[in-house]
Amino acid sequence: MSKSYNIGIDILGGDNAPECNLNGVHRFLENHSDLLNSVSLFLFGEVTSIKESLGEELCSKPYINIIDCKDNIGYNEHPVKAFLQKPESSIVKGFGYLKAGEIDVFASAGNTGAMMVGSTQMIGNIEGISRPVITSILPRESGNHGIILDVGINADCKPEMLNQFAVIGSIYSEFIRNIKNPKVGLLNIGEEEEKGNLVTKAAHKLLKDNNRINFIGNIESRGILNDGADVIVCDGFTGNIILKQAESFYEIIKRRGIKDDYFEHFNYESYGGTPVLGINSNVIIAHGISNDEAICNMIKMSFDASKNDLPTKIAEAMTSTFVC
Amino acid sequence: MSKSYNIGIDILGGDNAPECNLNGVHRFLENHSDLLNSVSLFLFGEVTSIKESLGEELCSKPYINIIDCKDNIGYNEHPVKAFLQKPESSIVKGFGYLKAGEIDVFASAGNTGAMMVGSTQMIGNIEGISRPVITSILPRESGNHGIILDVGINADCKPEMLNQFAVIGSIYSEFIRNIKNPKVGLLNIGEEEEKGNLVTKAAHKLLKDNNRINFIGNIESRGILNDGADVIVCDGFTGNIILKQAESFYEIIKRRGIKDDYFEHFNYESYGGTPVLGINSNVIIAHGISNDEAICNMIKMSFDASKNDLPTKIAEAMTSTFVC
Repeated sequence: MSKSYNIGIDILGGDNAPECNLNGVHRFLENHSDLLNSVSLFLFGEVTSIKESLGEELCSKPYINIIDCKDNIGYNEHPVKAFLQKPESSIVKGFGYLKAGEIDVFASAGNTGAMMVGSTQMIGNIEGISRPVITSILPRESGNHGIILDVGINADCKPEMLNQFAVIGSIYSEFIRNIKNPKVGLLNIGEEEEKGNLVTKAAHKLLKDNNRINFIGNIESRGILNDGADVIVCDGFTGNIILKQAESFYEIIKRRGIKDDYFEHFNYESYGGTPVLGINSNVIIAHGISNDEAICNMIKMSFDASKNDLPTKIAEAMTSTFVC
Repeated sequence: MSKSYNIGIDILGGDNAPECNLNGVHRFLENHSDLLNSVSLFLFGEVTSIKESLGEELCSKPYINIIDCKDNIGYNEHPVKAFLQKPESSIVKGFGYLKAGEIDVFASAGNTGAMMVGSTQMIGNIEGISRPVITSILPRESGNHGIILDVGINADCKPEMLNQFAVIGSIYSEFIRNIKNPKVGLLNIGEEEEKGNLVTKAAHKLLKDNNRINFIGNIESRGILNDGADVIVCDGFTGNIILKQAESFYEIIKRRGIKDDYFEHFNYESYGGTPVLGINSNVIIAHGISNDEAICNMIKMSFDASKNDLPTKIAEAMTSTFVC
């Protein structure tokens, strides 16, 4: 019998909770029935509404567990305060289960700040990792996807952090996106080695000397939607700027009634969230506006992350002598 | 009789020189015949090809002056070396005329680095200005245009520089784009005052206290194509990232055969260049791939910049006690 993974899902977090969250659970069970021997879902939410939505029969299945939560952290609450003051909230309870090892992964579309408080304060960084990092997908016309990291947690980065992001992004790309020996590019304002700001110039040197990764050089922002690099590293300020500008173009394209298959891939609502990389467990953060499909994908992403055990792989890479 | 402005135009600089440059001169003379009493064009190029293109009659007009240049600085030449080693090039001769006061403005689609060498080494910064800055246009769906600065000269900026950009951008916006009391936004990764990286957090405080400008707060990159701010300030690294990402989306839209009036405004080939702001004279840098229309617009931009005497207005603002 294959190993089973305990997946914790926040039913109360997100703009469309609990309806979309429960619909997403339904959809996951329908679309991924092949995984039902390999997962056990832990639903953190209000027990009555969960039972009402899923039905008594489904709720009695061995792969459904309900953890009754009487409170929720709203999207605009102060993360640290809310985390301390709401022990009965789905997010705090979820992190409690994760820390205790009762679940292998915790996923939420709720308050991102509170998710980061849980990640850094309750779970903690992998030894040698300065700061955790989150990624976003860059859809390409070829049908491939690149990833970019960091996209918002670390506004100010030292060159060494970009070098760590390159290692973390390569591991993510290899095991979650199935790209062997992924090509790493450094987001910069010129392709030549000597171009850039102080941080990217210094980071370029570190990346070039890092033989744990397949570094291909600088990538300008005009090149991030081409197939040049699988993993693009940048500080969280720049990554966030890139991500929101892409979202803005997508929104304008949609508003202007332009129908195009490629640009539909910029609909970040439908993606299943992103793992917090660099911490000692699996935490998945989904977009606040996640719909049914996004929640379904978030659960699938949670399964993939648990199965591939990224924290262990990242920890192994950190102890390698290759990494600065 | 109204004042006449001497406009220096590099006929040899740019990917499509000298053909497009001379076509652009033709087009300017046709489209702006109302200005012929107010301008005198100084064409820096090879005299034979200029006479061949414009014809003897036009070349004998009082508003056409030809300065024979036997050399050109290529787009991939080292700017400083080329500037020193090619005194007969159109760019070096142009800056010589500008410094001597024989022309009021010098415009080129040639080597940007060489144009910056001329701007900073031969013309020099306005007193109190740390570094010159260049802007780019942000087309809005409403038909309005915002500007963003810096877009590439200053990869690393101190908060004080962003504060200067705000003043410079406001003056540019008021006199060149005819926007009274232009709204200034700080490009950032959150709308709240406390969001951002170290530079934007500190810059926010300076901008808020600067009563020379109409500061409206932080703008996320998803908001730069809305009508929120007329002037968006950022460091040159981030501005360059924004600009090239917009170009990339435009190229993909074009490649996919999408026809849309709004997105056509992202065709930066057709814009008439951007002034180097913060130096003691008028210098206009156009895109290397400028076509006839772009060169025509570059000449019109040169006229507008000279007429409005931006350097004097920026110098006045710098001596004002309001500015940090």
